[in-house]
Amino acid sequence: RINGDRLWDMLMDMAKIGPGIAGGNNRQTLTDADGEGRHLFKRWCEAEGMTVGVDRMGTMFATRAGTDPDALPVYVGSHLDTQPTGGKYDGVLGVLGALEVVRTMNDLGIKTKHPIVVTNWANEEGARFAPAMLASGVFAGVHSIDYAYGRKDPDGKTYGDELKRIGWLGDEEVGARKMHAYFEYHIEQGPILEAENKQIGVVTHCQGLWWLEFTLIGREAHTGSTPMNLRVNAGLAFGRILEMVQAGAMSEQPGAVGGVGQVFFSPNSRNVLPGKVVFTVDIRTPSQEKLDRMRATIEKQAAEICEPLGVGCSVEAVGHFDPVTFDPVLVGRVREAAEKLGYSHMNIISGAGHDACWAAKVAPSTMIMCPCVGGLSHNEAEEISKEWAAAGADVLFHAVLETAEI
Amino acid sequence: RINGDRLWDMLMDMAKIGPGIAGGNNRQTLTDADGEGRHLFKRWCEAEGMTVGVDRMGTMFATRAGTDPDALPVYVGSHLDTQPTGGKYDGVLGVLGALEVVRTMNDLGIKTKHPIVVTNWANEEGARFAPAMLASGVFAGVHSIDYAYGRKDPDGKTYGDELKRIGWLGDEEVGARKMHAYFEYHIEQGPILEAENKQIGVVTHCQGLWWLEFTLIGREAHTGSTPMNLRVNAGLAFGRILEMVQAGAMSEQPGAVGGVGQVFFSPNSRNVLPGKVVFTVDIRTPSQEKLDRMRATIEKQAAEICEPLGVGCSVEAVGHFDPVTFDPVLVGRVREAAEKLGYSHMNIISGAGHDACWAAKVAPSTMIMCPCVGGLSHNEAEEISKEWAAAGADVLFHAVLETAEI
Ligand SMILES: NC(=O)NCCC(=O)O
Ligand SMILES: NC(=O)NCCC(=O)O
Repeated sequence: RINGDRLWDMLMDMAKIGPGIAGGNNRQTLTDADGEGRHLFKRWCEAEGMTVGVDRMGTMFATRAGTDPDALPVYVGSHLDTQPTGGKYDGVLGVLGALEVVRTMNDLGIKTKHPIVVTNWANEEGARFAPAMLASGVFAGVHSIDYAYGRKDPDGKTYGDELKRIGWLGDEEVGARKMHAYFEYHIEQGPILEAENKQIGVVTHCQGLWWLEFTLIGREAHTGSTPMNLRVNAGLAFGRILEMVQAGAMSEQPGAVGGVGQVFFSPNSRNVLPGKVVFTVDIRTPSQEKLDRMRATIEKQAAEICEPLGVGCSVEAVGHFDPVTFDPVLVGRVREAAEKLGYSHMNIISGAGHDACWAAKVAPSTMIMCPCVGGLSHNEAEEISKEWAAAGADVLFHAVLETAEI
Repeated sequence: RINGDRLWDMLMDMAKIGPGIAGGNNRQTLTDADGEGRHLFKRWCEAEGMTVGVDRMGTMFATRAGTDPDALPVYVGSHLDTQPTGGKYDGVLGVLGALEVVRTMNDLGIKTKHPIVVTNWANEEGARFAPAMLASGVFAGVHSIDYAYGRKDPDGKTYGDELKRIGWLGDEEVGARKMHAYFEYHIEQGPILEAENKQIGVVTHCQGLWWLEFTLIGREAHTGSTPMNLRVNAGLAFGRILEMVQAGAMSEQPGAVGGVGQVFFSPNSRNVLPGKVVFTVDIRTPSQEKLDRMRATIEKQAAEICEPLGVGCSVEAVGHFDPVTFDPVLVGRVREAAEKLGYSHMNIISGAGHDACWAAKVAPSTMIMCPCVGGLSHNEAEEISKEWAAAGADVLFHAVLETAEI
């Protein structure tokens, strides 16, 4: 078994870096706090005898050598970046859980045939630079590195510039590494495991996603002196699209979600009808057919909403992945490990996107989940228990051991 | 007649200060650009032999002496501050039009019994610091100066601190001045005069306003892993309130408007359902009864929208004025001046709020309007013709002369 106290101490130490305003974290991608978190993680890895490589996207790979020089490594990881008002566990648990697996192997003097590579993927959250899972996407060949470098935060700063600025531009070619397998341990970020009273989620699939960024063009005008019938009101169109996205997701129940997290009114002044409204619709479902239909319906209905209002409407897809089926052999190993260790478990579909979704394109991959209180995530109040954290790390330890071969 | 070319040149010179991004202006209240605009205006006034006083709200009063030491001054003005993406004429025309009236009097060697005070009210727009017409509101005793000093911009900077910072904190007690009359010349900011092909709007009333700032509290949660039935979606509630405000205003036609210009989602991240949505509803109508009913209906229906969604809803009134009836004698003088000068004219109700609405509480007041192209205002594309500008200033000249007495 892994050391649950030690894992918890690492989580709490990392949470001191980039504190939030309500007990959580704001350690967004390529901020100074992200840089500081990386240094702490690197020190911890090196203290365990691992060597740390960094690729040109800023992803960190800490290697524990294997006994067979020809054996490809087993990668185990997640991400250390957070949402602007994020929790202490989302991503962090998977990176530090992987490190705890290595520490346990070191304690027990276990040698594996395959090297183990503890991985901290860059920009998983996508909060500062869309899309999410950017570095793993480049690794898997889904995005070009030029595309990634050009992604801009809301202040117009680019990924490439900020990566250099914080000093974490590595020299490894992105995606050059070959993987024997990839494991990712993560909090569920949803309510199912807690409601079903299960310690372990055996993740079989991940739902697909579209991020549709809409730009609505109205006419900036005075809120007081512009009669109702002369308005070209992009704000009103936005309100109707919010309702339409909600209705669309409800009509695809069960197994579909849709919502809007981000909007910018321009000029965003109380007495000016917005001339421009930019917002992102987030839709997800495990069904490829539903995903395609939801996207098409939303684009069609948004156009139908805008047309009679005279509002211009354009859409750009700023994030996308298709539904993923994880590797059945690895999924089986996770289930067996939970079984052997006596942890209650159930199959689960990941509601959130994860680096494992892109890793699955280039290697057998899977995930392990633990519950989180009230299903709450992307919220500073995100919470898990030390026991939950430890149980999932135990399962990770055994599934990784099985795969890396003693 | 006033000198239309000279007036236009002043307008164009002022527009060079705090240029916008699309041909208009961004000279928001108490910014460096506002400070610079004030210096230019002061130089112009002093060149005409006027003495410039500044009160503790930053309002500027440029006095042209009268012949009777006991006669109260006739105040003539508007504002030099702009929206973030504002036009070159909104407010500016009224201040520089008043200055052109004085220049014309100087040219013609006209002496008046009552002094003339060209006035630049501080923070008319309310874009940076709500509410609008803040300094004239303090002048009229509607707000306390402490309330005004404590108003915050979106960065949390206060009115009091910023006024000091730009060096325009004056020493005059606010509201100590007594007025014989107040005139304000302004662009219509709406489409009526142009549509009716009239040069002059004789402003008889101003519609009343409420700015209702709503704070909706939802639950920050992951857009992907949070099932639809477990969402506490403040964004969705916002969408429904937008539609409700629109429907409410439509049901009060004709003579009522309602809309939303400003919204902040928090944390405003693509994959986080907003935990908090703050926005301002702007409703206006010339009818006191409608104004009260619209406010009550919106507050009631917003609560009804939020309740089933589990979203918390609170409202604060951050701006308000009741419908105003301008002084019939001054209104008559404006109409007579237009008539005498041969300008086409019509009665009009101001759709926007103006400093004249507060001045009307402490002195006989009225306004003069000229058309603007397409009724467009609070938009950098705001436009008027030199001839329109000159016609209104001519009417202002004659109405002021009549009131200030030769
Ligand atoms: N796990 C997680 O929150 N990833 C961010 C990408 C997403 O929105 O699913
Ligand atoms: N004239 C003008 O735009 N004033 C700002 C206050 C308002 O919104 O009416």
